[in-house]
Amino acid sequence: MNDHGSSALLTDHYELTMIQAALHSGAAARPSVFEMFARRLPEGRRYGVVAGTGRFLEQLEGFRFRTEELDFLSDNGVVDDTTLRWLSEYRFSGNVWGYGEGEAYFPGSPILVVEGTFAEGVILETLALSVFNHDSAIASAASRMVVAAGERPLIEMGSRRTHEAAAVASARAAYVAGFATSSNLEAGRSYGVPTGGTAAHAFTLLHDSERHAFSTQLDSLGAQTTLLVDTYDVERAVRTAVELAGPELGAVRIDSGDLGKTAGRVREQLDSLGATGTRIVVTGDLDEHSIQALAVAPVDGYGVGTSLVTGSGAPTVSLVYKLVARAHGTSADLPLEPVAKRSVGKPSRGGRKWSVRRLDDTGTAIAEEVFPYEPPEAVGTRPLLRPLVSDGEVVGGESVHDARERHRAAVAELPEQALRMSRGEAALPTVFH
Amino acid sequence: MNDHGSSALLTDHYELTMIQAALHSGAAARPSVFEMFARRLPEGRRYGVVAGTGRFLEQLEGFRFRTEELDFLSDNGVVDDTTLRWLSEYRFSGNVWGYGEGEAYFPGSPILVVEGTFAEGVILETLALSVFNHDSAIASAASRMVVAAGERPLIEMGSRRTHEAAAVASARAAYVAGFATSSNLEAGRSYGVPTGGTAAHAFTLLHDSERHAFSTQLDSLGAQTTLLVDTYDVERAVRTAVELAGPELGAVRIDSGDLGKTAGRVREQLDSLGATGTRIVVTGDLDEHSIQALAVAPVDGYGVGTSLVTGSGAPTVSLVYKLVARAHGTSADLPLEPVAKRSVGKPSRGGRKWSVRRLDDTGTAIAEEVFPYEPPEAVGTRPLLRPLVSDGEVVGGESVHDARERHRAAVAELPEQALRMSRGEAALPTVFH
Repeated sequence: MNDHGSSALLTDHYELTMIQAALHSGAAARPSVFEMFARRLPEGRRYGVVAGTGRFLEQLEGFRFRTEELDFLSDNGVVDDTTLRWLSEYRFSGNVWGYGEGEAYFPGSPILVVEGTFAEGVILETLALSVFNHDSAIASAASRMVVAAGERPLIEMGSRRTHEAAAVASARAAYVAGFATSSNLEAGRSYGVPTGGTAAHAFTLLHDSERHAFSTQLDSLGAQTTLLVDTYDVERAVRTAVELAGPELGAVRIDSGDLGKTAGRVREQLDSLGATGTRIVVTGDLDEHSIQALAVAPVDGYGVGTSLVTGSGAPTVSLVYKLVARAHGTSADLPLEPVAKRSVGKPSRGGRKWSVRRLDDTGTAIAEEVFPYEPPEAVGTRPLLRPLVSDGEVVGGESVHDARERHRAAVAELPEQALRMSRGEAALPTVFH
Repeated sequence: MNDHGSSALLTDHYELTMIQAALHSGAAARPSVFEMFARRLPEGRRYGVVAGTGRFLEQLEGFRFRTEELDFLSDNGVVDDTTLRWLSEYRFSGNVWGYGEGEAYFPGSPILVVEGTFAEGVILETLALSVFNHDSAIASAASRMVVAAGERPLIEMGSRRTHEAAAVASARAAYVAGFATSSNLEAGRSYGVPTGGTAAHAFTLLHDSERHAFSTQLDSLGAQTTLLVDTYDVERAVRTAVELAGPELGAVRIDSGDLGKTAGRVREQLDSLGATGTRIVVTGDLDEHSIQALAVAPVDGYGVGTSLVTGSGAPTVSLVYKLVARAHGTSADLPLEPVAKRSVGKPSRGGRKWSVRRLDDTGTAIAEEVFPYEPPEAVGTRPLLRPLVSDGEVVGGESVHDARERHRAAVAELPEQALRMSRGEAALPTVFH
C-alpha cells in the first residue's frame, strides 16, 4: 500500500531545501502570508468550485516528520541536520482561512490564506495544491453535470479511470457538487458518500443465458435491482426482465448505442408491458453536454465515469500557492509587506486579501470583490473566508453533507448565464479594491 | 489520511453485488479468464506504455476484507451474510500473467490475463483498472517526452497538479518511462526514484534582495545548486549568480517567458562570464511538443509538471477488464468457453489470448501478434506475457529500475515512425491469429 501514516513526504523536494537555506539566513522565521488562487478558470468555464478543504485539513493533521520520514531525508542527503531537527518538531502553528468547501470561485479569489512563519507555510505548498487542484477540478466538472441533469440523479462511477486514491477523492468531490451516489466503496466508508451498483456485462456472460443471469440477480438482489439490458439484444432483454421481475422491476441500465433513441424505445416497451414505474438509467461516455442533450429523452438517471474523474477536459485547475506578504524581520510585531514576482506572463498581486460576493436586490451574485483589508460587513455582500485553522488547531472541519449544502446554495445564487453549458467567460467579474 | 491498511474497498459496489448473485446461482466458482486490454490508443498516439504492474501486485497483497471492511459492508447492507463470509476468506488464489512493466502496447494487446474463479477475478476489476489506467497514461505521455528530450534529462515536478497519491504514482511511472528525477519525496521513499529540487520564487521574495537570497542559497546548498533567475530581471540575476557562485555554479533555472530565446541569451551571458559549465534548466508548462521545439536551444534539462501528470491530453488510457472465457460449470476440468458481448460500438473478442512482438531481421518491431493459444517459441518473435502471480503468490515483483530498463529496450526496438511527436496511427498493426 505504500502508505506510511504521514502525509509529510507528499511534498516537493525543494520545499525542504528552501527551508534549509532560509534557516541558514534566519528568514525561515519571518511572519508570512501565502495565498492560493487561480489566475484563470479552465478554458470556457463560467465558474469554479472549491473542493478538497476537508481532505486538506485531515492531511494537515497527519503532516508530521517522524523517525521514518527523517531517516529517509537523512539517508538521501535531502537536507542538513539543522533542518532535520526543525522538521522533527514541525507542527503547523499558524492560521488558515479559506473559502468554504463547495463554494464557487473566480479568477483571483483568495481560496486559501495561510498565515505563519515562512517555513511553516511554504512546507504545505505541495500538499495543499495537490488536494485542492485535484478535488476542485472534479467538483467543477461535476457541478456542471449536476446542472445539466436538472432533477435527475447522477451516479459517479469513474473509479476505474483514475488513480485508486484519486477515485475516492473524486467520488467525494462529486458528492459535494451534487451527485447522488458513487460506485466507490471506500468513499462510502471514508466520507459517508452513498454507494450503489448492481451488475456488469460480465455477470450476464458468466451465466448460460441472459434469462438465467437476470433471474439469479432478481432472486439475490430483489425486484428493485437494476438489470443491465444491452449485453445481447435490448428489446429481448427488456422483455425477459419484465417477464421475470414483473412491473415492480426497479430499473434497467443501457450502456451502449444511441442512448436517447434506445431509452425512448425502452420506455415505450416498459410502459406497454405495464412496467410504468421501472426507471431507465443510462451510462457510457457521458459528459455534461451529452447529459444536457438527453434532457428530452425518458431517462431517469445518469451514470458518469471518465469525464467526471478527468475533470471533463480540465483534470487540474491551475491553482497556485504564492507568498504574498512577509515581514522584514522575524519579530511578530513587524508589518507584513506585500511581495510579488515580476516575471513575464505570470503576474501576481502582492499583499494579503479578503473577499466578499456581492449580491443584487434579488440575491443574485453580481461580483467577486477582493480587498486588501477586511471589509466591514455590509448589506448585499457575503464574506467568503471562514476560519479553518487557528493557532495550529483545526477549527473548520465539517461533513461532506455540509459542503454539499453550501454548494447547492452557492450555485442557486449565481446568475443564469453561469449555468450555461456553452463555453464562456467567468460569470462574475473579480473586482480588486 | 483515510488509509485503512487494506485496498479491498477501492472497488466498485457492483463487483460485490455481482459476487452475491453469482454465489446464489453457484456460478461464482466457475473457472474464468479476465483480460485487460485497450480497444484503441489515445487519439493520435503511436504506442502506449504499460505501467502500474508493480503497484498492482503490491495492492493485491493488501486486498483483504478484514473486520473493518466487513463491518462497513454489513452496516450499509451492501451484500448479504453469505457474501460477507466469502469476502472474509478472500485471497486471490489464481494466476496472473501480464506484459512486463515498461513494455509498449497496442490496441488489443492482452496486457493482463487473470485466471481464477469468476468471483475472485471480477473482484479485482476496479483496482486493476484504476492502477493501470492511471499509471499507463502517465508513462505513455512521459515516454514521448523522453523521446523528445533526447539525451537531455527530464525532471518530473507535477505533484501539485494531481491528487497527492496520484502524484507519487506519477513520479514512479515517469521514472519507469525514462525521466531522470522527480520532485516528489514520497516517490523517493516508496520506490527509490531519485529526487531533486532547490528553490522557488517564494525563496527570493522572502529575502530582502535577490542577492541576499542567492548568497544564502549558495552558502547553504553549495555552488552546485540551481538558482532560479526569473523572479525580477533575468540578466541581472544571472550576473549576480555568477558573481556570487563563480563559474562553478551548477545551474540556473528559467520558469517564464520565451524559454528558447531566454536560454540562448543566458547561455551567451554565462559563457561570457566564464561559467561555461553552468547548466540551464527550463520549466513552465512544457510538454513533448515544446520540449521538441527547444531541441535547438542551449538547454541542459527540462522540468515537466502539468502535462506529465495529466497524461498530456490523455489522463486515462481506456483500458478495460473483460471476462473473455469461462467454464460451463464449476469443475476444474471443464473447458473454458469464449464469451463476448455483442453491444453496439464496443465489440469484444472472446477467448483467452497470448501475444508476441514480431521483429524483422534488424530487430525492429513490425507487428503485435495475438494468438488464441500459446504460440511455440520462434525466431523473430518475443513473447510478451510473463508470470506475475502463480496460485495466488506474487512471482513477478521487480524494481522500478528493471521496468525502466525494459522500457528503454522496448522503445529502442520500435520502428522510427513510432517516435514521431505528430499525431498518427498505432505504429504496429495488431494481428489476431
